[in-house]
Parts: sequence; structure tokens; C-alpha cells
Amino acid sequence: MKGERPRWVVGVDIGGTNLRVGRVAIEAGGSPTGVRRSRTRPELGPGQVLDRVVAMIRESVADVGRDSIAGIGLGAPGPLDAESGVVAETPNLGWRDYPLRDLVAEACGLPATLDNDANCFTYGEWWMGAGRGCRRVVGITLGTGVGGGIVIDGEIYHGASGGAGEVGHTSVDFGGRPCACGSRGCVEAYASGPGIAARAVEAITDGSGSILASLVDGRLEEVTAETVQEAAAAGDRHAREVLGETARILATAVANVIHLFDPDVVVIGGGVANAGERLLRPLRREVGRRVFSNQMRACRILRGELGDTAGVIGAAGVFRRAHAAS
Amino acid sequence: MKGERPRWVVGVDIGGTNLRVGRVAIEAGGSPTGVRRSRTRPELGPGQVLDRVVAMIRESVADVGRDSIAGIGLGAPGPLDAESGVVAETPNLGWRDYPLRDLVAEACGLPATLDNDANCFTYGEWWMGAGRGCRRVVGITLGTGVGGGIVIDGEIYHGASGGAGEVGHTSVDFGGRPCACGSRGCVEAYASGPGIAARAVEAITDGSGSILASLVDGRLEEVTAETVQEAAAAGDRHAREVLGETARILATAVANVIHLFDPDVVVIGGGVANAGERLLRPLRREVGRRVFSNQMRACRILRGELGDTAGVIGAAGVFRRAHAAS
Repeated sequence: MKGERPRWVVGVDIGGTNLRVGRVAIEAGGSPTGVRRSRTRPELGPGQVLDRVVAMIRESVADVGRDSIAGIGLGAPGPLDAESGVVAETPNLGWRDYPLRDLVAEACGLPATLDNDANCFTYGEWWMGAGRGCRRVVGITLGTGVGGGIVIDGEIYHGASGGAGEVGHTSVDFGGRPCACGSRGCVEAYASGPGIAARAVEAITDGSGSILASLVDGRLEEVTAETVQEAAAAGDRHAREVLGETARILATAVANVIHLFDPDVVVIGGGVANAGERLLRPLRREVGRRVFSNQMRACRILRGELGDTAGVIGAAGVFRRAHAAS
Repeated sequence: MKGERPRWVVGVDIGGTNLRVGRVAIEAGGSPTGVRRSRTRPELGPGQVLDRVVAMIRESVADVGRDSIAGIGLGAPGPLDAESGVVAETPNLGWRDYPLRDLVAEACGLPATLDNDANCFTYGEWWMGAGRGCRRVVGITLGTGVGGGIVIDGEIYHGASGGAGEVGHTSVDFGGRPCACGSRGCVEAYASGPGIAARAVEAITDGSGSILASLVDGRLEEVTAETVQEAAAAGDRHAREVLGETARILATAVANVIHLFDPDVVVIGGGVANAGERLLRPLRREVGRRVFSNQMRACRILRGELGDTAGVIGAAGVFRRAHAAS
């Protein structure tokens, strides 16, 4: 297959909980093929995660000619420097000043790009998903953490330090819940999967009656955001209160984003967003109470359209964009 | 003076409390000349404010040839539509769907532009002040209200509805103080002049001991942010607590701006910012606790350099920019 024109970009989405890799068609974009999924398992050490990522990339491209691969787009949790390809610090993964891009490029013998995972999500949804055709897109990912990204006129907006779009660490309660980042009242401390679970469990140990405990056979440390959603779906009042507050807190953060950035669309993804309209409906209602009517009319609040490969598609799109520009 | 090449733009800053008008040199920018200042006095009715603005423009240009004036740049409180020149709604001034730009242009026989007053402040500080040479500038004005503006690469960022940069209505306490806008916990409800005064008075009527009452001869309705600053300077513990909380709240909002927008500089102006380093020092310290270290290293937090004519200079700059582009 020598001399073949590259047809694919490999997209890699490295999350705190899940790894996802797939091939995306350079021209057409669309759903990735050769998709590989795995748990991140950061507890096995930073080198292990790298080895697994490289192995998944090799598997993903095994059935197409090597020359048909243009390169690799990587998305990873920040803060990171997209230009140098170095992850500054990712406590979850044990990476610090880690030259992830060049390590992957070398191991695979292919050029690579690196950007923040939530930036990749947002870029993917702008390129191929709910933000198609929009000039100003804000993406929010609700998962192990709460991430965010901004795309203006088809380009990721990185800001002065590369740290723009950090919706998860905006505070909606200046004296509120402590966050692992050192601040207080961060959205992530309330509305990430672990944040939702922790709030639900705290209220139970404070004495609220709930079916939650029985759903995990009394092992409260096993409560997850999904357990809370399950309890709420079964009518549990306590779980519903926790999710109601989650929507209120997220709405405050989204309203703050709209007041500052006034986007055409806010796209929400990540595991917690699987609640779909049960989350989005109260969210939109509360956002409407908090922003000006002209801002609200200009902005749609949508669930991501690309499912759990939005980050893979976006990471591939970021490589494609850099490739086209060079 | 017929056929003279225009040398001046008139800048007009319409605030909730003060009107300011001046001539700015098109080429050089810099401090305005022919400056006129007046109280806005919105209680006299919307037409009165317009008449006064037009009279002040005429006075400001009276001693130069008519042909030396290129046009008028207006800044007014929003929400407004810069493109059509219409103020959508300014409760303070009693304006609603008010075609301010064209009314002023017609009355003066000169072309005019209109933009949000805080956008003009930010543009002025980018053009000639503390934000000179910076790619990403956020301006915050602390006065009768709390305004904000964003300049990216030398252009005001307006957003999808024209309502971007509304720092004053970002919430730092999702269940907090009700704001006139209908939301809760807005920065403006705490850190505007009236917000500071109201919080100080409330705490006194709740029983805190303070010299504040004696500073206004017991007429608590006359307490202003300046009175609170005066009391704090005299060592009053209660006033210091109110100002300490103000800095903490402002810091949360500035940290949110940095997390989302990651600017090179945040420029703070308006009457409340006259407190200078007494406000900025605790503010920077608290922001540093709330953002990532690389974001903090990339961003300076500065007081505006242009004093109370920043809005005049910026409004003139906005006209100049539109003029150059057309």
C-alpha cells in the first residue's frame, strides 16, 4: 500500500476512568472505526497507561495499511501545553511535566498532536455534532471531573496559559464545598460523578431516609452518580433532591458561561449527561431565570450528539486541523 | 476650516450616575480634551438625558472647527445592540428599545457608533491604558453597577446576542443575594457601590457596632460605598469585614473569568476601584487561591490607567475602529 494517500487519523481520548481510541476518516469525519475501549486504571502507574494507549492505537490501525494513517490526535486531562505536547499535571493519572505527545509519536512512529480532553470534546461536537455551523460553542463534560472547552470560529480558544474553558473549576458558591484544586464551591465538587455520589452519601449519613443504601447493600462507598440516578428514577425523594440541586448548580455555571461568553450553543456530554432531558429540562429552566432574555434566545443548551466517542472524533479533528494548517 | 481633515472623535460615556464627554485625537488617542462632566440624573426622564448629552457634545466641540470632528462614539449601559444602535433596556435610565445612536447622530449632524459602556472601558484600556499590547483583555467596572467587557486581538468580543462580558451578573453564590436582574448571588448585588452600602447597612441594623451611622449623622440611607471605605480607613471593624467580603466575592468572580477566559490581563475600573491597592492586594491573594498556578502566572490584575475618562476614550476608539474598517 506504499504511497497511498493518508485516509485516517487516529483519535485518542484519555479520561480519568476510560480510554477510547478509534480511526476517523480525514475527509468525511463521522463515527470512528476500529474503536477500542478500556479502563484507564491509573492506579497501575503512568507508564502502564501510556503502554496501553500505544497498544490500543496499534490494534485500532491493524487492519488498514500503515501509510493510510496521517497521524494521531491525543486528548488528555489538563492542565497541559498543547504547543509543546506536555501534560503539566494530572493528579488522577500521576503525570507531571509528562511529554505525552512525543512519547506516543515515537512509540507509534507517527506525528501526533495533544490537546485538553474537554477541548477535544467541544471541537468534535463543533466539527461533527451538536455545535455544527455555530460560531461560538462551549462544551461541558460531566464525568469523573467536570471539563469545559471553547471553540470560536472553528478554532479552540486556549487563552493566555492554555487553561481557558475550565468550567469545572468556576465557583458557584464562594464559601462552599472544598474542591481538590484548592478552591471552594467549584462545579466539579458538586456535579462530577464523584461529587454527586459524595453529596448523596453525606446526606444519608446525616440521617436522610433513602433507598440508596439498599441499592448498594449498605456499602455506601459503592454509591455512584448512576446509583443516585437509579434511586431518583425509583422515586426516592432524597436522591431527587440531590439531582435537583445538581441541576441548579450546573445551571448557575452555565448561566455564568452565558453571561461571560454569550455562545450560540452549550453542548453537554460525559457520563452524567446520560440522564438526558431529565437533567437538561430543569437545567434550561433554571438558566432562563439567571440570564437576560436576549442571551437565552441566542443560546441553545443541547446534549452532545456524538456519544462516548466525541473526544476521539475531536482529538482526530484537532490533528487534522493542525495538519491542514502546516 | 472647510475641507480640513478630521482630527477628533467625540467620546461619550453615559453611566447610571455620571455623564462624561470629551474629544479624543483620532491618530494619537490619549487624554481627551474639551471634557464635560455632569450627573446623569435619570429621574428627570429619558429625553432629558438625551438633551443633556447632545448639549455636552456641542460644548465639547465648540472651540474646534466642525469639519475637524469625524464623529461620535457613544457608550451606554446595556443590554444594547451595537449593530443597530438601539438600547434594548436600561432600567436605570428608563430606556427601552431606544434608538440612542441615531437620535444623537441626527441631533448633532454627525455619524455615531454605540457600544456597551463597560465594553468601551475595556476597549479604552486596551487601546491606551493598562491592557496595551495584550491579546486577551477583560475589563471590570465597579460603579453604580458592575460591568464587564472582553477584547480579543483588538476587537470587542460581543457574543451571539451582544451580551458577552457581563461579569456583574455572574453568580458567586447560587442561592445567595437576590439581584435586580432576577437571578441570585450576582457579583453586582454585592460589589457595586449600592451593593456594598446595602450590605454594610443591613449588618448595622442587624446589630453590629460601627462608626458608620455616626459618619452619616444616623441617616443610614445616605451610606455609600465611599462611607464604608472611610469607616474602614478609620479602623472600623464592621466596615472592614464588609470590604473583606467584597474582595473575596470579587476575587471569586475574577477567578471564574480566568478559569473560563484565561486572559493576559484583568483591568479593574470604576469608582469602587478608587480604593486601589487596598482592594487589589487582597483580591489578587484570593484569586491566587482559586486558579491554577499557570493561569495566575499568565494573568495580571491591574487597576485601570485612564481614570474616569477610560469610557470616553474607549467609546471614541470604537468609533475610530468602525470608521477605519468602513
